[in-house]
Amino acid sequence: MDRRSFIRTGAVGAGAAMLAAPAVAQGNITWRMVTTWPKNFPGLGVGAQRLADRITAASGGRLTVQVYSAGELVPPLQSLDAVIDGTAEMSHGAAYYWQNKSPALSFFTGVPYGMTSRELTAWVRYMGGQEIWDEIYDQFGVQGFLSGDTGTQAGGWFKNELTGVDSVKGLRFRTPGLGGRVWEKLGATVTNMAAGEIFQALQSGTLDAAEFVGPYNDLALGFYQVCKNYYFPSFVEPGLATELVVDKKKYQALPEDLQAIIRDVCQAEYDQVASDFYANDPRALQTLINDHGVKVLQFPEEILKTGATAAAEIMTSLRDSDDPLVKKTAESFIDAFRIVRTRSKTTDGAYVTARETYFEI
Amino acid sequence: MDRRSFIRTGAVGAGAAMLAAPAVAQGNITWRMVTTWPKNFPGLGVGAQRLADRITAASGGRLTVQVYSAGELVPPLQSLDAVIDGTAEMSHGAAYYWQNKSPALSFFTGVPYGMTSRELTAWVRYMGGQEIWDEIYDQFGVQGFLSGDTGTQAGGWFKNELTGVDSVKGLRFRTPGLGGRVWEKLGATVTNMAAGEIFQALQSGTLDAAEFVGPYNDLALGFYQVCKNYYFPSFVEPGLATELVVDKKKYQALPEDLQAIIRDVCQAEYDQVASDFYANDPRALQTLINDHGVKVLQFPEEILKTGATAAAEIMTSLRDSDDPLVKKTAESFIDAFRIVRTRSKTTDGAYVTARETYFEI
Repeated sequence: MDRRSFIRTGAVGAGAAMLAAPAVAQGNITWRMVTTWPKNFPGLGVGAQRLADRITAASGGRLTVQVYSAGELVPPLQSLDAVIDGTAEMSHGAAYYWQNKSPALSFFTGVPYGMTSRELTAWVRYMGGQEIWDEIYDQFGVQGFLSGDTGTQAGGWFKNELTGVDSVKGLRFRTPGLGGRVWEKLGATVTNMAAGEIFQALQSGTLDAAEFVGPYNDLALGFYQVCKNYYFPSFVEPGLATELVVDKKKYQALPEDLQAIIRDVCQAEYDQVASDFYANDPRALQTLINDHGVKVLQFPEEILKTGATAAAEIMTSLRDSDDPLVKKTAESFIDAFRIVRTRSKTTDGAYVTARETYFEI
Repeated sequence: MDRRSFIRTGAVGAGAAMLAAPAVAQGNITWRMVTTWPKNFPGLGVGAQRLADRITAASGGRLTVQVYSAGELVPPLQSLDAVIDGTAEMSHGAAYYWQNKSPALSFFTGVPYGMTSRELTAWVRYMGGQEIWDEIYDQFGVQGFLSGDTGTQAGGWFKNELTGVDSVKGLRFRTPGLGGRVWEKLGATVTNMAAGEIFQALQSGTLDAAEFVGPYNDLALGFYQVCKNYYFPSFVEPGLATELVVDKKKYQALPEDLQAIIRDVCQAEYDQVASDFYANDPRALQTLINDHGVKVLQFPEEILKTGATAAAEIMTSLRDSDDPLVKKTAESFIDAFRIVRTRSKTTDGAYVTARETYFEI
């Protein structure tokens, strides 16, 4: 909040730009990118490093990006603050990690029963999403760009099979964020814990169930050793969009070609990360099924239905927020959602349904 | 073929690179991009121009791309040849336009009952697709990059409602390429004609039905004035990926940062074009429904099912091709397809189905 009022005075704006320009003119610059991901974390940590390397390559080294994985420079959940306070110029993470700054930020990552990755880019790039996101981040002097997406995630690992909403009651389930709130409404006892702690908690019996990302990441964490029931799809994480956040004043002080390169590479990486998950999730799932005896199950209809009611309550409460920017974001999201979901339903979704019903090769 | 043997001698390779280098060193270069699309054609022609502008911007004008729309420099279906013969350095179009050079090229655009856009990028970027595509285009001295995608298209405009396969018999239907072959197997009398001729043919009764792209493009062409039955989804065009093709020797002679910029911008545009269609197709469809009384219908199950059998025959015949490269492409595509479709079915597709069944806001 101090930062916010500081920026509002306008004292930083032009000054920073003027200071930065000579540094650029003198030659190559190096920017620090902090990330919320562990080094080599499949899809996401790897994606952050690749994004950095691509900026360095496309700029011919004029803008060299040095990556600091989770904890190397700052703790993972201080990545955005590190850009705000100038410790780093860039942060690679997910907007919903910063819900404490604004609950509206969840919409730019993914919300329960919300947009798929393709729907999200339609909103962000063509239906006013980016402009609202800019308005939110302007309060903190930063600029966000979409930089990757996991696609729809897995629903989670469950020790026992689920028969309906009754079997969710009292279930000790690791699932964070707004998704966790949906499961809470379904009766689960929801908890959050870091990736590295989940396996042990499942093994010791502290947890009955856990969801993390999807097969590509989950295989590496070994959950199949203690749970065999793997439920799909995640109706609370229809996608997880990652973001690159940059210091806005420093970004705007860059020559225009370097600004363009950062934007272009982020957008290229959105596609690259999604492609990575789309290729490697099903490969990992085959390994889980064939080598580790994992059972792939779809959630009972009753859970999907009750979850939808809970998710609608959460989305509605965000739309009815007293915070005008949260309200505005939710309204824009819902308006766009009502339009883009019709394409998913009658066209792309209907195609996949027809193909999976009739096409064999 | 002359070109092919010419390249095989290796006489061009290093020489071209050495010649090009000084030109680059002397300063800015301008490349000509020919396209298969009319100027300002929604989504695709606009995308070609934007792609060119983004390369120019990200390179700070060192590589300026000058766009020639369909017919401005060469006729649209000679765009690839224009790059092969040196008339232009770049072509923006779709690989399946060059089926006469290799039937394998269809796989890099989209084939009946084949991959969706996200599945296609998984194959191309992570499952060997790009390498095979390079092998095909190496014969012609060019390099292809994915540069956009329409997503799943509309199934088409029909004067009369379809009740089953019987109502397809003898139907005079404008639908080109492999999709046309599927409809032929279903009993339609298939024809192809240029975009500008379709409306008149529908109006005069020369055609009973036509498919083009989807609402975004079809609205502009006015088909709703003569047909009211708009069927979804296209099971013969689950996506239409566009390509940027470059002269490979000239590309490789560019400084590495400019090569990276071309790659990055193409990939960014893949996402941008898909986002454009995802935002603007459903908006156009609302206009068609609300302002023009268009009826949105899903194909009868019998047509979806019989179409699947026909599509499998076509895909199998490509896999059994005597041309080793066609066979290799089809095998790679089918292997990848069998893996990635599982994710679409159990995860992303299952999510959309659940959401459209239960989630209201």
